[in-house]
Amino acid sequence: MINKLVDKIKKLNAPVVVGLDPMLKYVPEHIQKKAFKEFGETLEGAAEAIWWFNKEIIDKTCDLIPAVKPQIAMYEQFGIAGLAAFVKTVDYAKSKDIVVIGDIKRGDIGSTSSAYAVGHVGRVSVGSKSYDAPFDEDFVTVNPYLGTDGVKPFVDVCKETGKGIFVLVKTSNPSSGEFQDQKIDGRPLYELVGEKVAEWGEAHMGDSYSYVGAVVGATYPEMGKVLRKIMPKTYILVPGYGAQGGKAKDLAPYFNEDGLGAIVNSSRGIIAAYTQEKYASFGAEHFADASRQAVIDMIEDITTNVGLK
Amino acid sequence: MINKLVDKIKKLNAPVVVGLDPMLKYVPEHIQKKAFKEFGETLEGAAEAIWWFNKEIIDKTCDLIPAVKPQIAMYEQFGIAGLAAFVKTVDYAKSKDIVVIGDIKRGDIGSTSSAYAVGHVGRVSVGSKSYDAPFDEDFVTVNPYLGTDGVKPFVDVCKETGKGIFVLVKTSNPSSGEFQDQKIDGRPLYELVGEKVAEWGEAHMGDSYSYVGAVVGATYPEMGKVLRKIMPKTYILVPGYGAQGGKAKDLAPYFNEDGLGAIVNSSRGIIAAYTQEKYASFGAEHFADASRQAVIDMIEDITTNVGLK
Repeated sequence: MINKLVDKIKKLNAPVVVGLDPMLKYVPEHIQKKAFKEFGETLEGAAEAIWWFNKEIIDKTCDLIPAVKPQIAMYEQFGIAGLAAFVKTVDYAKSKDIVVIGDIKRGDIGSTSSAYAVGHVGRVSVGSKSYDAPFDEDFVTVNPYLGTDGVKPFVDVCKETGKGIFVLVKTSNPSSGEFQDQKIDGRPLYELVGEKVAEWGEAHMGDSYSYVGAVVGATYPEMGKVLRKIMPKTYILVPGYGAQGGKAKDLAPYFNEDGLGAIVNSSRGIIAAYTQEKYASFGAEHFADASRQAVIDMIEDITTNVGLK
Repeated sequence: MINKLVDKIKKLNAPVVVGLDPMLKYVPEHIQKKAFKEFGETLEGAAEAIWWFNKEIIDKTCDLIPAVKPQIAMYEQFGIAGLAAFVKTVDYAKSKDIVVIGDIKRGDIGSTSSAYAVGHVGRVSVGSKSYDAPFDEDFVTVNPYLGTDGVKPFVDVCKETGKGIFVLVKTSNPSSGEFQDQKIDGRPLYELVGEKVAEWGEAHMGDSYSYVGAVVGATYPEMGKVLRKIMPKTYILVPGYGAQGGKAKDLAPYFNEDGLGAIVNSSRGIIAAYTQEKYASFGAEHFADASRQAVIDMIEDITTNVGLK
């Protein structure tokens, strides 16, 4: 699956991923109204609204983007109905040949991480039968706080299914440094985590990059530069571009000399583009056309500033 | 909710929590057979089997135990059907007046942690309506790797609903030391996390303990001793007793002089008790009676060795 991701990024010259984090406040009123009319102002209504919203964005951007990254929390908050909308979104994106990175940030002790891995990127056994993972993303994000025990079960499962993971190394949020930047023998914790990611990745290599990727926030480019060197064969998923403050000119250090090695995420900046002044002329009715234009602008911004064109 | 948990622990003289981590291999064959007959060897069949298994264990132990801790991964692996069984288990335990600690180990950037918090321990807004959290546990476990940003949204939501969290500090698994034990200015990372937990906890205090608890594995008693001092008002959830190797005689440091401050989890040791030689005479048909006896023995073991009786 890492090979497919790399191929798609090369073919589209688009090292971008659209974050499908559909907070209800981003969903245009006409969609909410229609969903609430049919299902009431219920969890089911909310779930249906975000699914319709996602579907239209996928339809209008699928020829431009290699991947989407649905954030499961935005679905989980609406319970079972919300998670059903997550599954529908994953399946629909895959039907459009888009790689799906499930942003689930799971991680636990070994036997428990195995269960998460099986349910998201593996195969599930029930009695004498076995099934594709019920969530069935192509990649998932994993939290490393529990160490190798908590990550290896994901790698093991991915080896069987040809899927992959992105391990949190240095996150994009303001307080990420509180623990991640703490110095151990003069070097920050995230560097140690980065070294482990490179090590875990050696066990599951694709053609030129590993199936084990890393998450490094766009908001910390100096750290991105160091981590790029520590993890040369690791694809870096870069959140924090756009709405969170990361600029395209800061993204160059995340890429390798082959022009690959990083994929930049934007969520709000794309899915809620119609709420920005720049794209306001599309109007809420044409929110997905605004998203399409925002994707085109994002690809242009990144490829120009990073020197990929 | 921390006050209710403390009251129940005192009343029952039972600082224990039963981990409802129902791997299918723990579910007796007669239950699996019945569920598969009705629903097939499907995800629904698996979900129904673990729900029936849980229900019988809850019925047979609810008068002895203050709390249960369902591990959501064991349900999530069976997809939507599995998560519906999780919700049924949470609701059923609460109907029996048992405190429910959802072992979900979520944690993300601020806006995303808010969504998890709302969906598990908060209230969800849809249009003009608002609903109880769809998962609605009394407590949840939280991963601290993202720092204050990722934890505070849970605390804020819990302040509104009177619920609480347990933050991972030092986990029970063998590789937990890989990052958690790394020395920062001579002190391990888990101590820094412990200090933060104490600080976060000051913002949401119950009568004698905080609504913000900590997870510290039974497998590391020396560290438990240090952490007890760093977090005097923090309830410590202690996994790793029994099947993972933690012994009752090592648990004393986790408790305060008031005989409170810690609650010890056992999962396999209780729910799969009937598979142990010690309880084999109950037979698989009476697995829940074996669980009841294992709970009685666990309470006796802990209260005797810790000096609570």
